Amino acid sequence: MSKNSTSPTRPQKPMESRIGWSNEHDIRIYGLNLMQDLMGKQDLGAMAFLELTSRLPTPSESVLVNAMLVALVEHGITPSALATRMTYYGAPESLQGAVAAGLLGLGNVFVGTIEGSAKMLQESLADAGDTPDFAALATELVNKFRAAKQILPGFGHPIHRPDDPRALRLLELAREQGHAGKYVQLLLAVSAEADRQFGKHLVLNVTGMIGAIASELDISWRYARGLGIMARAVGLIGHIREELERPIAPEIWVRVGDEAVQKLRADEE
Amino acid sequence: MSKNSTSPTRPQKPMESRIGWSNEHDIRIYGLNLMQDLMGKQDLGAMAFLELTSRLPTPSESVLVNAMLVALVEHGITPSALATRMTYYGAPESLQGAVAAGLLGLGNVFVGTIEGSAKMLQESLADAGDTPDFAALATELVNKFRAAKQILPGFGHPIHRPDDPRALRLLELAREQGHAGKYVQLLLAVSAEADRQFGKHLVLNVTGMIGAIASELDISWRYARGLGIMARAVGLIGHIREELERPIAPEIWVRVGDEAVQKLRADEE
Amino acid sequence: MSKNSTSPTRPQKPMESRIGWSNEHDIRIYGLNLMQDLMGKQDLGAMAFLELTSRLPTPSESVLVNAMLVALVEHGITPSALATRMTYYGAPESLQGAVAAGLLGLGNVFVGTIEGSAKMLQESLADAGDTPDFAALATELVNKFRAAKQILPGFGHPIHRPDDPRALRLLELAREQGHAGKYVQLLLAVSAEADRQFGKHLVLNVTGMIGAIASELDISWRYARGLGIMARAVGLIGHIREELERPIAPEIWVRVGDEAVQKLRADEE
Amino acid sequence: MSKNSTSPTRPQKPMESRIGWSNEHDIRIYGLNLMQDLMGKQDLGAMAFLELTSRLPTPSESVLVNAMLVALVEHGITPSALATRMTYYGAPESLQGAVAAGLLGLGNVFVGTIEGSAKMLQESLADAGDTPDFAALATELVNKFRAAKQILPGFGHPIHRPDDPRALRLLELAREQGHAGKYVQLLLAVSAEADRQFGKHLVLNVTGMIGAIASELDISWRYARGLGIMARAVGLIGHIREELERPIAPEIWVRVGDEAVQKLRADEE
Repeated sequence: MSKNSTSPTRPQKPMESRIGWSNEHDIRIYGLNLMQDLMGKQDLGAMAFLELTSRLPTPSESVLVNAMLVALVEHGITPSALATRMTYYGAPESLQGAVAAGLLGLGNVFVGTIEGSAKMLQESLADAGDTPDFAALATELVNKFRAAKQILPGFGHPIHRPDDPRALRLLELAREQGHAGKYVQLLLAVSAEADRQFGKHLVLNVTGMIGAIASELDISWRYARGLGIMARAVGLIGHIREELERPIAPEIWVRVGDEAVQKLRADEE
Repeated sequence: MSKNSTSPTRPQKPMESRIGWSNEHDIRIYGLNLMQDLMGKQDLGAMAFLELTSRLPTPSESVLVNAMLVALVEHGITPSALATRMTYYGAPESLQGAVAAGLLGLGNVFVGTIEGSAKMLQESLADAGDTPDFAALATELVNKFRAAKQILPGFGHPIHRPDDPRALRLLELAREQGHAGKYVQLLLAVSAEADRQFGKHLVLNVTGMIGAIASELDISWRYARGLGIMARAVGLIGHIREELERPIAPEIWVRVGDEAVQKLRADEE
Repeated sequence: MSKNSTSPTRPQKPMESRIGWSNEHDIRIYGLNLMQDLMGKQDLGAMAFLELTSRLPTPSESVLVNAMLVALVEHGITPSALATRMTYYGAPESLQGAVAAGLLGLGNVFVGTIEGSAKMLQESLADAGDTPDFAALATELVNKFRAAKQILPGFGHPIHRPDDPRALRLLELAREQGHAGKYVQLLLAVSAEADRQFGKHLVLNVTGMIGAIASELDISWRYARGLGIMARAVGLIGHIREELERPIAPEIWVRVGDEAVQKLRADEE
Repeated sequence: MSKNSTSPTRPQKPMESRIGWSNEHDIRIYGLNLMQDLMGKQDLGAMAFLELTSRLPTPSESVLVNAMLVALVEHGITPSALATRMTYYGAPESLQGAVAAGLLGLGNVFVGTIEGSAKMLQESLADAGDTPDFAALATELVNKFRAAKQILPGFGHPIHRPDDPRALRLLELAREQGHAGKYVQLLLAVSAEADRQFGKHLVLNVTGMIGAIASELDISWRYARGLGIMARAVGLIGHIREELERPIAPEIWVRVGDEAVQKLRADEE
């Protein structure tokens, strides 16, 4: 039902966007001239930073935002890539629909863990003052997640051992670029504390490290997941291109369809 | 209904992906090592090029693919941005859903015209040999679209006059980078011929020029639309960020809801 | 870029919806009282008819619209169901995202053919007068599609032989209910003509017959595909329920992921 | 990255679906013959029940499941309908994309509250035995939500006063059909307790009541939200039909686009 106002005299509230505007010959975005300041001068990663922070990155920030995005672009045959390929099979006229289908799987189980990691770190450090006690905060966090029987966001991986090589590389870059600050330090403290409490090494994964570095770059946990969405949109186009050249969706359909109903069919036919 | 094979002895067809693979300590993408060759060395635009062509761009190609993507990231308050904002209002827990909703509007009316432009140019030049007669091909194309009463893809714009500044800037960059080849030349010939036949200047728009430059970079028209999808995924995150800070969706709902049913309600209440 | 008006004095155009409205205690839809006229009295198929035609169905129309919808609800393990299951695996918190992913595959290859069938029949009969020559129109249509090397919409099926049992059942119901009018007659004439021209029997499929019966019920081809979308939204919820109880997405991921990159990995590792 | 098994000898896990199967001349769904048992005999609401419970409804259950679905089909100009209309404007070739965009907004703020209500009731009664103390359970629930500073799921409405007429009508139908059992009783007890604790009447809304009646019909809270998704897919087709006949999306774009950037433009132009 529509949210009709009950009074015809309801005052209108303002609607405002400060992202950009255009006229006959000009286009401005976050105060910059699209043609002169951005096209030909900035890369797509810098634009991502601009959308996330309203300003262009410094050279160091540019390295890091691009490295985080590059790390997430392509994951080979994932559930998300399979959803895109299945959708493209049925609706090849609608590339945008196939990409949208793939993005829809980027929820709490996969890249959504960026949000969990960033939230954990940002909330923990919000009231910790200028000289946080990282070990104490880490103990508090690990205790809290264990008590709630929740998975520690940013830890665990089905394949990589003993560490996620993307997380290691990001850490190396953050240090090189002078951005391994308090969020990165807290994440490493959480990692050490988790290993201690669980009595074994937990894999620190790429989304965990991205949660920390995004926090270093002042990206709120509320939209830090957006880094994964931007990156995967790029990668899913590659899967559509390959599906066009070397399709696998029809074969998946036949094989799974056959096998999954075999027993039922034997019972009922 | 599932496409069950009729015979239990149906031979399986191969399923193959050549995009990438990973093991415990390594991740390879298009033959490159993700950590050593890509992270910290390539930007997100280069990754887009890699997904579209299976190889990294040259420096000139990098300028152009980034410029095309940068041109499309942000368009202010568009129908697509409004769909994202409306969706985020109802499902703030699902950032990926709000972005997917915005991407779904990138169809034939808006960025889909990249595909139309690239297809027109690529098909026209497919059998044109090494020294195409651009004027003759352009006349043929304009005649064909006029006869079919179809809009010439890549022309027309609601605001920009006399030209789309993004198209002009892309043309400038293509020339600077030595990539204003036969596809760009044909598009300019089409523009001149269209002006002649219609007796007025048609605005050559950004998607038209991107169709040409994507063709120069060997990106097939079948997935050239993907450039727009990649870029807009980046921009839509900015709209979610702003909607979180300065929401307009609730006000749009109330205003449109009130006004649209005013007459009906007066008739029926 | 936003479609900013060039003049501040641009007159506003009206925005009007005649679907429904509500106030503190009442909700009206297409002129009916939701609580008194619809809830408890009409079924979901009647609501679908109401949304498609602005009026409630007669008893005969109700049988047919429900039969068309029921025919399309469930197809077992389809590409669309697989996209839903893959998406639910990654984002179990967002049921709506998993359904949306499944619907996105309902394009030109699968249920979109309802649109093709309805369009073919509606356009052919638009100027055919009160006593159409079905055989002549059918010959014209088959000739036209063959000349354009296009698939005749509504014909062909990967499994059902010699006919799609759903199409036969719908035809039976249309006849019983007195709705096997000119659109159904033309479709049957097209079927006979196609068999004659191709020298073999083409399977008349369920979407072909739905295109004809939707036309009998005055549903425009422009949104006839909506019947398939409504029905599949119902069925996809069943696949989410089964995925929750008896998941197959993780196993598909592992099997396809392993097999698809086996060769590449052997080459590169 | 694909979840490649680390061992080539990993045993395959079974993949099984018990929803349905088909062969050349037959289609079975949940053990029923689609053509003979369902088409022409069951309505779309009964199919929804079948997908949610694996069996056909009794006549009383059929009244209730249809009434719940009918209640949710159409809500006039909602954020979800606006997302569909905006998307259809940009991609009119892809009806399924426009519906998907509208469904994506059915998250925690709107119909997702069905899930919250059903979960609250089902979890509260899970261990309450055969003769639950409704008043005590209600007090416990209201206390719990207040302590967590969370909104009580199923309560509150922007327009309807003093009650949501759809909730009242559903309650009436549940009583008439003999299905106002323990879940409905607990919801009414929660309503009374909330009024007492808050010192004012909270509107019991339609999604709250649907959470209770879905529970009566043995529909798990894990997919109860599916009722809203099924219903809204039907309604969104009506909005596409109206947008085709009487478009409002272009006008919304212009008006919002103009107004939202007016201030920014004045500052920067």
